[in-house]
Amino acid sequence: MLTISTRGQAMPASPIRKLVPFAEAAKKKGIKVYHLNIGQPDIETPKMVLDAVRHSDFKVLEYSHSAGNESYRKKLVQYYASVGITVSANQIIITTGSSEAIAFGFMSCLDAGDEVIIPEPFYANYNGFAVAAGVKVVPVTSFIENSFALPPISEMEKKITPRTKAIVICNPNNPTGYLYSKEEMEQLKALIIKHNLYLFSDEAYREFCYEGHQTSAMHLTGVDDHVIIMDTISKRYSACGGRIGAFVTKNQQVLDAAMKFAQARLSPPGFAQIAGEAAVDLPADYFDTTKAEYKSRRDLIVSRLNQMEGVFCPNPGGAFYAMARLPIDDADRFCQWLLEEFSFEGQTVMLAPATGFYGTEGLGKREVRLAYVLNSNDLEMAMDCLAAAIKEYPGRV
Amino acid sequence: MLTISTRGQAMPASPIRKLVPFAEAAKKKGIKVYHLNIGQPDIETPKMVLDAVRHSDFKVLEYSHSAGNESYRKKLVQYYASVGITVSANQIIITTGSSEAIAFGFMSCLDAGDEVIIPEPFYANYNGFAVAAGVKVVPVTSFIENSFALPPISEMEKKITPRTKAIVICNPNNPTGYLYSKEEMEQLKALIIKHNLYLFSDEAYREFCYEGHQTSAMHLTGVDDHVIIMDTISKRYSACGGRIGAFVTKNQQVLDAAMKFAQARLSPPGFAQIAGEAAVDLPADYFDTTKAEYKSRRDLIVSRLNQMEGVFCPNPGGAFYAMARLPIDDADRFCQWLLEEFSFEGQTVMLAPATGFYGTEGLGKREVRLAYVLNSNDLEMAMDCLAAAIKEYPGRV
Repeated sequence: MLTISTRGQAMPASPIRKLVPFAEAAKKKGIKVYHLNIGQPDIETPKMVLDAVRHSDFKVLEYSHSAGNESYRKKLVQYYASVGITVSANQIIITTGSSEAIAFGFMSCLDAGDEVIIPEPFYANYNGFAVAAGVKVVPVTSFIENSFALPPISEMEKKITPRTKAIVICNPNNPTGYLYSKEEMEQLKALIIKHNLYLFSDEAYREFCYEGHQTSAMHLTGVDDHVIIMDTISKRYSACGGRIGAFVTKNQQVLDAAMKFAQARLSPPGFAQIAGEAAVDLPADYFDTTKAEYKSRRDLIVSRLNQMEGVFCPNPGGAFYAMARLPIDDADRFCQWLLEEFSFEGQTVMLAPATGFYGTEGLGKREVRLAYVLNSNDLEMAMDCLAAAIKEYPGRV
Repeated sequence: MLTISTRGQAMPASPIRKLVPFAEAAKKKGIKVYHLNIGQPDIETPKMVLDAVRHSDFKVLEYSHSAGNESYRKKLVQYYASVGITVSANQIIITTGSSEAIAFGFMSCLDAGDEVIIPEPFYANYNGFAVAAGVKVVPVTSFIENSFALPPISEMEKKITPRTKAIVICNPNNPTGYLYSKEEMEQLKALIIKHNLYLFSDEAYREFCYEGHQTSAMHLTGVDDHVIIMDTISKRYSACGGRIGAFVTKNQQVLDAAMKFAQARLSPPGFAQIAGEAAVDLPADYFDTTKAEYKSRRDLIVSRLNQMEGVFCPNPGGAFYAMARLPIDDADRFCQWLLEEFSFEGQTVMLAPATGFYGTEGLGKREVRLAYVLNSNDLEMAMDCLAAAIKEYPGRV
């Protein structure tokens, strides 16, 4: 018998995408499904960004440099300066989405059996890249009651073993929307210095902060060798399908190692590098407009959720996700039921059960993640559906 | 001290790209460098293929399905039928270049410590993906004297251990240009059945056969569960920078496992999927023209090389590479010397030392790989340079 690898078996299915067949079945029955399950914004990709690709006039779609086009990396230096981060073009490797940046980080800094500490709930695909790299994810629980703030450093410290090599954060956070404070970032800094750890910082949602500003891991001083930023244009410019991200660090050894992984896959996608480069020249008010839109959506769903009996949703400071605790027995069952058995005026809503975002078995059973990636009218309708569903759900508690 | 992972250290630098700094230095001195070192064709990407992207009119650059756009996969079913391969759209996962297809194959079918047997010399990046996956590459030597034909099955069989899980071939071959015969493919079939192995078949150069036709691994009968094809649009349509490939297998278990790795990285690049889909509709004579061009280039360089004293170059049956044995002491030293110290009428040539394509230390020291990706005039000039260089090189033997 030909067999699948142990890691192929251990690889988790995406908790965000695993309900897709039920959504497809619901649509076939004629039910309209509001997709709040996935961080695919409805915001249009800026025309200027798409036009840069459409108006390109090269004749041969060539490999780029393995680190990405130099012109793009130079442009990104400008972008990072605009958010208070000083890096050179040589400290940036363009990646195929932030996904590949995460993979490069794990592969370059950790061996099989090494451990990374990640506050949970966390972006589920970290699990996938950890399984691929043979790395063990050690979760430290954050709690909905205090908006999923950074767990106490003492709790994180308890998890450190001789195999611990890194801490992974996502800031602002997916799935919780939590924006780490400057104080929390300084606590993390002390921790990585004390225990000699890498800090992998996923900053995909950097611009989307509604309560104060983001403290980037690269704003921390004196830890240049520790910090690796995983970045992406996906959410920033609503360009998820381009698959362009960046691996950014000032640690030369790490850069050298990551470059070898980058060379093995030859180059990042060509067309979307053109898009990414053009995006840096978007007018300064681009993010103001987008952010205002997301903020009004956030206000809408947080308010609507907290009006529902038995529902609690902390106010997320950034990104475009909210986590809510619902009066239900089992989030996975509930989310499937929403698609399989429920409808309200011919409509229903698709949510991501929070269980898939926790590393600790059994947590998140009453929580769901909502991505506010639809316009306000659709969000109102989705909230109407959810309110009706919570009343009707047989597993209500 | 923060450390790099063992695999980060073990990761090989690209043998094709490691001489790049010397080429850059030569160019700064005003020397024209003919690049025969890398499989980046000069052939124009078909206008129709680029136009499909340039004329696209979507508003949001969205994630595609993790397996790639359904419309593209359906189109590929048509493409594969045209080359005698019957597959369904569900048996295809669109990947980020064939690079990712190789990674998915290793990750899904092999665990760390498992072994793959590969005839050497082989495409150097297999090493990279093997290191990333913790997989051990076990080379079986093929020889320039018989054009790098498949090593005797008895030699391959000797290398099989309880950890052997797969055989990897590239057909037609990069770097040797060798086109495996139907008989050789049947021998491989018997071997994978007898020892219950996967056959990973890299068929990037399928269309470029100058002596007879390609026997695809998917033309073999009765081994559906064993065969995985790694494919790409890079060479076929001169679209290397698009980063679009395919992972094709009829083994449902393998597909299920690979899909989980595909979900973790969300989706393959969006723009280039549009290009790949359009390419399937190229007129039937597209490959005739391209193939004729490559064939005339092959004839040119093979003839020129064999006219040089002490040089031997077998006639490659496919792809766009030739391997030549030169009267030199050390291919790495020679290739660096070509860039650092040599010029002929203000020009020089960049080659890939064959050492990087062998898994066995010490082999390939007198061999180089030449990619015939330049037009005939440039190839003639490059051959003039090489002929002069061989005469002048201090390490001539």
